[in-house]
Amino acid sequence: MNYMKKRMDFQMVNKQEFYETVKATLSFFEKASIVLTDEEKGRIEVADYGLNDLKNTGLQLMTFVNTDRVCAKEMVLFPHQTCPEHRHPERNGHPGKEETFRCRSGKVYLYVEGEKSENIHCKVPAGSEEYYTVWHEIILKPGEQYTLYPNTLHWFQAGDEGAIISEFSTNSDDASDIFTDTRIKRIPEVEK
Amino acid sequence: MNYMKKRMDFQMVNKQEFYETVKATLSFFEKASIVLTDEEKGRIEVADYGLNDLKNTGLQLMTFVNTDRVCAKEMVLFPHQTCPEHRHPERNGHPGKEETFRCRSGKVYLYVEGEKSENIHCKVPAGSEEYYTVWHEIILKPGEQYTLYPNTLHWFQAGDEGAIISEFSTNSDDASDIFTDTRIKRIPEVEK
Repeated sequence: MNYMKKRMDFQMVNKQEFYETVKATLSFFEKASIVLTDEEKGRIEVADYGLNDLKNTGLQLMTFVNTDRVCAKEMVLFPHQTCPEHRHPERNGHPGKEETFRCRSGKVYLYVEGEKSENIHCKVPAGSEEYYTVWHEIILKPGEQYTLYPNTLHWFQAGDEGAIISEFSTNSDDASDIFTDTRIKRIPEVEK
Repeated sequence: MNYMKKRMDFQMVNKQEFYETVKATLSFFEKASIVLTDEEKGRIEVADYGLNDLKNTGLQLMTFVNTDRVCAKEMVLFPHQTCPEHRHPERNGHPGKEETFRCRSGKVYLYVEGEKSENIHCKVPAGSEEYYTVWHEIILKPGEQYTLYPNTLHWFQAGDEGAIISEFSTNSDDASDIFTDTRIKRIPEVEK
């Protein structure tokens, strides 16, 4: 299958898991009436952040455009799946990535720097507790959004039904992201 | 109604036409499963470009975010409605607006600079023929998109069913747009 070809060689998920993940991602898009071309379906990205625990820590992405100035993606999180804590630092003297997350379907719990919220709805993936440090909770339901300015630590997790999130941002360069979890490799060494 | 309040004072459409247009716009979004918050529903923008011919020349917009660096909108075109020819020039020494149009539903005929296409599918709004000068046709169906770099003349028209178009761009500043049709006022003088 074409789906299996791209963007998985350097992930730890195996072919079967990758194929099933892409299929489930496409099903999320279909349910939300988000239309992709066949070419796009063939380049869904599955990120397991090198932790080999995709069910808990992972993200599925469809990048529509990523020029020097503008990037737009749709991201899928399965139920309770977490995108781990990270920030987008300055790059070669230019401001880091700015991003707006807009919830399209499901529910997203977003955690950012700031006062710790009283009721935290999410549980950090087991074994990774020490790598999560920001606890200001923002809940995004469909139609709700939040803008993150550069260098702000953040992580997010989907609710019971999973979620689709649109990301509107400046240029996206995964290699420059700084994760709190030092075990994480977003991009394999060979690609850096 | 809240819908009627905003962004119409300086347009030539009357209250009734504005109200009906917003209602029809919301219905487009609903059919495409694009969820807006109540706050957003209350600030749908109707642009008639000061030509008082909304049915033929006009655009309906929902701006999700517009920071110094990133802008994202959903735009609705009713059947055969046209967004008139314009370009986004340099602003105070900075590059002009770059924009990616992604068709979400319906069909869009986009015209840009370049070789004139053999089969032109659209008709320019009657009486405005002299203000349309670029004829390289790009057809966008759902899931298809096109990126326009700064200062490129372009115009677009929806097909028989109308269209929803996502726009992913750099900062949007309507006041700096340059329209080929010198009668057009995108932003009223008082707001400039």
